[in-house]
Amino acid sequence: MEVPMLVSDFLRRAVQLYPDREAIIDGDVRLTYGRFQERVNRLANALAALGVGKGDRVVLLAPNDYRFLECFYGVTAIGAVLVPLNYRLVPSDFTYIINHAEAVAFITDSELFPIAEQIRGELAGVKHFIAWSYAGDVMRPGWQDYDALLAAASTDAPETPGLDENDLATLNYTSGTTARPKGVMMTHRNLYANALNFIMHLGITDQDTILHTLPMFHANGWGSPFAITAMGGRHVVLRKIDGGDIFRLMARHSVTIACMAPAVLSTILNHPDKEQHRIATSPRLIVAGAPPPAAYIKQLQDELGWGFIQVYGLTETSPFLTVSRLKPHQEGYEESERIRIQDRAGMEMIGVDLRVVDDEDHPVPMDDQSIGEVVARGNVILKGYWRQPEETDKVIINGWFHTGDLATWDSERTINIVDRKKDVIISGGENISSIEVEDVLYQHPAVLECAVIGVPSERWGETPKALVVLRAGQTATEAEIIAHCRARMAHFKAPTSVEFIDSLPRTATGKLQKFVLRDTYWAGLAKRVN
Amino acid sequence: MEVPMLVSDFLRRAVQLYPDREAIIDGDVRLTYGRFQERVNRLANALAALGVGKGDRVVLLAPNDYRFLECFYGVTAIGAVLVPLNYRLVPSDFTYIINHAEAVAFITDSELFPIAEQIRGELAGVKHFIAWSYAGDVMRPGWQDYDALLAAASTDAPETPGLDENDLATLNYTSGTTARPKGVMMTHRNLYANALNFIMHLGITDQDTILHTLPMFHANGWGSPFAITAMGGRHVVLRKIDGGDIFRLMARHSVTIACMAPAVLSTILNHPDKEQHRIATSPRLIVAGAPPPAAYIKQLQDELGWGFIQVYGLTETSPFLTVSRLKPHQEGYEESERIRIQDRAGMEMIGVDLRVVDDEDHPVPMDDQSIGEVVARGNVILKGYWRQPEETDKVIINGWFHTGDLATWDSERTINIVDRKKDVIISGGENISSIEVEDVLYQHPAVLECAVIGVPSERWGETPKALVVLRAGQTATEAEIIAHCRARMAHFKAPTSVEFIDSLPRTATGKLQKFVLRDTYWAGLAKRVN
Repeated sequence: MEVPMLVSDFLRRAVQLYPDREAIIDGDVRLTYGRFQERVNRLANALAALGVGKGDRVVLLAPNDYRFLECFYGVTAIGAVLVPLNYRLVPSDFTYIINHAEAVAFITDSELFPIAEQIRGELAGVKHFIAWSYAGDVMRPGWQDYDALLAAASTDAPETPGLDENDLATLNYTSGTTARPKGVMMTHRNLYANALNFIMHLGITDQDTILHTLPMFHANGWGSPFAITAMGGRHVVLRKIDGGDIFRLMARHSVTIACMAPAVLSTILNHPDKEQHRIATSPRLIVAGAPPPAAYIKQLQDELGWGFIQVYGLTETSPFLTVSRLKPHQEGYEESERIRIQDRAGMEMIGVDLRVVDDEDHPVPMDDQSIGEVVARGNVILKGYWRQPEETDKVIINGWFHTGDLATWDSERTINIVDRKKDVIISGGENISSIEVEDVLYQHPAVLECAVIGVPSERWGETPKALVVLRAGQTATEAEIIAHCRARMAHFKAPTSVEFIDSLPRTATGKLQKFVLRDTYWAGLAKRVN
Repeated sequence: MEVPMLVSDFLRRAVQLYPDREAIIDGDVRLTYGRFQERVNRLANALAALGVGKGDRVVLLAPNDYRFLECFYGVTAIGAVLVPLNYRLVPSDFTYIINHAEAVAFITDSELFPIAEQIRGELAGVKHFIAWSYAGDVMRPGWQDYDALLAAASTDAPETPGLDENDLATLNYTSGTTARPKGVMMTHRNLYANALNFIMHLGITDQDTILHTLPMFHANGWGSPFAITAMGGRHVVLRKIDGGDIFRLMARHSVTIACMAPAVLSTILNHPDKEQHRIATSPRLIVAGAPPPAAYIKQLQDELGWGFIQVYGLTETSPFLTVSRLKPHQEGYEESERIRIQDRAGMEMIGVDLRVVDDEDHPVPMDDQSIGEVVARGNVILKGYWRQPEETDKVIINGWFHTGDLATWDSERTINIVDRKKDVIISGGENISSIEVEDVLYQHPAVLECAVIGVPSERWGETPKALVVLRAGQTATEAEIIAHCRARMAHFKAPTSVEFIDSLPRTATGKLQKFVLRDTYWAGLAKRVN
């Protein structure tokens, strides 16, 4: 028997087995799985009544909210495609994406009315403007009230649209560090495979309670709305990142797991009152977006006794490709070695086939020194870019998806991301991993944050330059920083110049925007590598 | 990207990530994943060189052995279909199955030469007779030596046959309690879905070491050859069930998990020297085939401190449909209540949709009293019966597979198997679960084994009769047994007669053959229910 793998499976199971279990906690709002399904059905029926149907795109611009979770299931239940937007983008981005996706409906949160009203005149294709009220905000004219729509709709299961598992479920625009965002087409099968990998490799059970520290728009919350639901776990919604809130919610709701970028991990580790909270559940933190400094891992495990699991992937890969866990024979290693392993991207998840290849698509030696591009195959990989087949063809080549990320790998095929392809520094013919240099910089007591970029050099083609944010009250000179690096790594890798700045430019998801930094130094040149 | 889900994925991952890890321990034979893959490749290449190709059936008649594990991967790698036989059947069964499957190759173990040579003259379609030597047995004329074939073949990956995930991987003949065995067609997708459910719901990691207490022919070892491999765990092979061997291997190899029928659980619990072995890993035992007496679960948990997880399914369902685990709110229940929950078939696994329905396909009330048939949908369910579409149509009706098992279900949709459909006793219009009566009988100190069947009754149509095997040295009278039951359950459910017998008729996999018992009492009647 062949049954299409649809994300609705996950909620169906939770509702059937855990109808009265608390599914979602969002401030004062608490929904059982039974109530959650009712609201999801109402949303699906309300959208269907508006004429939204199979294949139609429904844009969602909102911070984390229990209604965001409803949209994952309610929009897809009728075969429509959810397009979750990064709310930290600027208005021109929103307009571009919504028109590019040719969305027919736009759902937002009352807190975003100012920006939503600014752009709505430019959204010619959108027929339905829907908003939910946050914190008692009054609905504005011209907006349909999300909760009123639901209240008027039936709780019956919506008519099923005859979905195939290769039909689209979501369209996720990449944050676009360089160009216009591209729409990543995610099928039900893509999301299903990722959700099962989430469960298998992060060990999800119905005992788990997730705190949604990650924006749900970000690669669909990495699939946690599906994985946690499938196993009958609990969702705790966090709207804004705040160290105190994180600790309070973790303690109050016995949180066991949370996904985050390193910046949020930093917020947790640097929270001044963290000792006051007893988190008996020792939550495991799933970290991706960038490899965190090794010092963070040690601090998390030593000071808080929490778990740390690094994962790696891209929006284009649903997102998980790899997970970093100690293998049985590594359990007895010394702490520093264990942390070194945990600080790698790790090993491919089930169903993912992964290679590190050179420019001719040949695997680079598994010596953990040779650098190549990470390429992957699997059911987690995007169907393609929405209406940009030429962009799809640039990344899926001979059946392998090219991540643009550079890595080394060892004899057991665990990978270590060393750079973005375009961020690698080639100096005197030698490849330099900017992350490696940054790791050394982080060992300096005065360094709070840093970034290393390649800048033009008459002698070497490129030479590494360090941009450093100093800790409050600390000082250091350029010469001291350079000496610190030269003492700890091959001299050719050490920065030849240091600049002290107030903050680093980052994307909404915390990814360092090195191209912004490079702009300054490469202005007027025809290309960005030498 | 859509990539076919093939069982070869699982071994590929293990080899890529754990090449030097011990994969298989079988007596003195120890294979790393790297070596295992080499031998699998050799087998695939050897079979291909013999002309075995995509879609061809390869029969395997063997006890558990490391080479059995090789066949799961080597045969399927070239797109051939593995047909694992139950070696406890009789020669006429083997001949029937092998000819029905139109197998082109026959692989066996030297220990089974007597029976294999007895039947080979009747296997007109088989072109290749292959055997491996067990314990130094000398190869016989007319048999190709499995290990010599492998030695002569290349370790290179075989040519891939362009497999689709809906192509057959195995053909598993059901043990057939009533009629000729039927060939259950299992696709790669079926086995893949089951393996992922094995991992998700039994919490498999690379820390796991399985002891193969279950015959590998039985529903492909319930999928453990795929699930354990996918996560990089270890396989310890057990050839014959022996309590002492089980404890010794568990201790020596730090076994963490084992699958078994209740009869093997009983062997473990009744092993006289069990106190002498310290099993530091507290293995979790996965039990199915029949609901074990509740007393077994308590004894396992109290005396040995091991884990007990009941699962339920059929060969036709890959086999897992449900798993019985305590939900979070049940953790605090009293022991007797927790054991009552553990002794149910439990809740549907991910991707399985399950109902308990009456004869008109309407769900019976979720009151845990009303009895109906378990029906299911999902990717774990067979493609159909081999060359018996009319039999397929009898079990897959309107998209639902009919298990023939009778159950009750509660408001949280966890199911409790109460009988085989044909074993239910209807007495005076009341349904009686024979298992329920048996559970009460097992509480009597003199009862070692028992079976309850319906026998004809002028007054009630049917009336329950108990067949009882007494413990050695114990006595009991018919009147005592009946009084024991009447004191503990509704009087209409208590047996009205008791017969003491020496042993119960069972199938090779330990399933009680009630139809054999019933034959005596229903001889000469037109039907078997009144």
